[in-house]
Amino acid sequence: MKNNACIVHCPGTVANLVCGFDILGLALEAPYDIMHVQLIDEPVVRIKNLDDYNLPTDPEKNVAGVVLLEAMKKTDGTVGFEIAIDKRIKPGSGIGSSAASAAGAAAAANYLLGNIFDRDERIQLAMHGEKLAAGVKHADNIAPCLLGGVTLIRSIHPLDVLSIPSPDLYVTVVHPQVEVKTSDARQILRTQVPLKDAIKQWGNIAGLVTGFFQNDLELIGRSLEDVIVEPIRSILIPGFDEVKKQSKAAGALGGGISGSGPSIFMLSADKLTADKVAAVMQEIYEGIGIAHHVYVTTIGKQGVKVIPGEFPTLI
Amino acid sequence: MKNNACIVHCPGTVANLVCGFDILGLALEAPYDIMHVQLIDEPVVRIKNLDDYNLPTDPEKNVAGVVLLEAMKKTDGTVGFEIAIDKRIKPGSGIGSSAASAAGAAAAANYLLGNIFDRDERIQLAMHGEKLAAGVKHADNIAPCLLGGVTLIRSIHPLDVLSIPSPDLYVTVVHPQVEVKTSDARQILRTQVPLKDAIKQWGNIAGLVTGFFQNDLELIGRSLEDVIVEPIRSILIPGFDEVKKQSKAAGALGGGISGSGPSIFMLSADKLTADKVAAVMQEIYEGIGIAHHVYVTTIGKQGVKVIPGEFPTLI
Repeated sequence: MKNNACIVHCPGTVANLVCGFDILGLALEAPYDIMHVQLIDEPVVRIKNLDDYNLPTDPEKNVAGVVLLEAMKKTDGTVGFEIAIDKRIKPGSGIGSSAASAAGAAAAANYLLGNIFDRDERIQLAMHGEKLAAGVKHADNIAPCLLGGVTLIRSIHPLDVLSIPSPDLYVTVVHPQVEVKTSDARQILRTQVPLKDAIKQWGNIAGLVTGFFQNDLELIGRSLEDVIVEPIRSILIPGFDEVKKQSKAAGALGGGISGSGPSIFMLSADKLTADKVAAVMQEIYEGIGIAHHVYVTTIGKQGVKVIPGEFPTLI
Repeated sequence: MKNNACIVHCPGTVANLVCGFDILGLALEAPYDIMHVQLIDEPVVRIKNLDDYNLPTDPEKNVAGVVLLEAMKKTDGTVGFEIAIDKRIKPGSGIGSSAASAAGAAAAANYLLGNIFDRDERIQLAMHGEKLAAGVKHADNIAPCLLGGVTLIRSIHPLDVLSIPSPDLYVTVVHPQVEVKTSDARQILRTQVPLKDAIKQWGNIAGLVTGFFQNDLELIGRSLEDVIVEPIRSILIPGFDEVKKQSKAAGALGGGISGSGPSIFMLSADKLTADKVAAVMQEIYEGIGIAHHVYVTTIGKQGVKVIPGEFPTLI
């Protein structure tokens, strides 16, 4: 059988792009999970973990698993998948760890089944994984992970996803090792917001989109302001205000909470600044005494990469 | 003295571009006010009305007058202005009648004083007129009137105005002759809005801006949805729902309340559709028995036009 195995690189993503809560996300160039996926002649999904996260290997309880099970529904019922997962994006870090698994599984299934899913179907497929992970079918990590670059989720029902061009920006991400549950981060949000804040927010969103289209870094910088979600959620992240203030002082265009946290991301125009921002972040969390990881990377233009390859013999 | 008189054409504008409440506006090619403005050797503002609207001629109480008085503050105190106003945009129609006077006066003063005001200063200057007319300094009619095309007011304090490219769209406007006071239209708005509606709104705003940049008419159409302001304000405009429904059925991309009403605007891809929409609007208001005006025009690319010219002898 042709194309019966592949390797997928599934990058981390930043959802809730500051003012773009629930609608804007971007793909990172790194870190990324590595998954080996193989089409097999049995209608089952078999999962093997190559990492130490101890994620469930029951396909019904595994983010990649439920996506592959869903993909199997589009086959003649005689085939299934074996998957070996080397997760490098720490679960719970807020940079789309579960979306990486879901999007990677959708991309692999599509490749191995002969490109039977179009762009939106791949997104829909991957959203089954996010539903398992987060309880809701959202696409703000899935879409940038699958498509790369910056993506706009204009609407979920019906699905309306758009790619937004973006400058070659550097991204510095710090993951302070504190637990912020997505469900908690959702629960503390107000269900009603002042109209005047909402207007400010959508002015910034329109400014941010315009800045991306016009390659206007200053405009991007001054539009990266969130008056609705960040003031509430940032309380859950120790050191947040200091990271933001000092990152900007170090030259970052701006940034904020990645997804629902605890990771914080900052955009910079060049690597030198992104490195300075990384140093600032490190210093702050060393000062507070919180374990942390810092990544300096770029916006990932491509998103998930599918590479034809042999399935490893270890499974 | 060179450049001592000019004629300005000041177009109508559509503010609150459906989902873009308080931030997005566009200039119409027509209708437009015509103002004759002359620099004089006395530090006063003299106003003459060439129309029948009986607007105040006391410069302190006239929208164009306060703008010219403000502009005089930047002179050596020896000059003033004479202005003759032929208002063709009906006051209270919701297509930026007062903004046309304010923007036109700012553009004329700038021209006659030798281009001493930069783009943002002209906007700030004109905002003094809007303050007199509406009680608040807003720029969502001023900016498109001065700059033409589609404009984004990302922020008022500090002023941050951006021009958004847009396709060559046709605009059909109906002005049903009912009174909707801007202050009333503001008062009935809720001060708090559901977060989920705000998210939907900013998804649409991001979609609309993307549609304008990508010349994607379908995207523009499906983004022209306002879940926050229109459901409330449209109650003040008889026939609104019917106009919207039938205009879309006639092929309009979409549209909504112009400014705070009562005018309704619809965008179309071509003149044939825009004319069909006009016919639909006419039929609806004839059916209800409400006097109305309908305009078929385009998005005005240029905004205010300043034409050097003699001051008429009539004043």
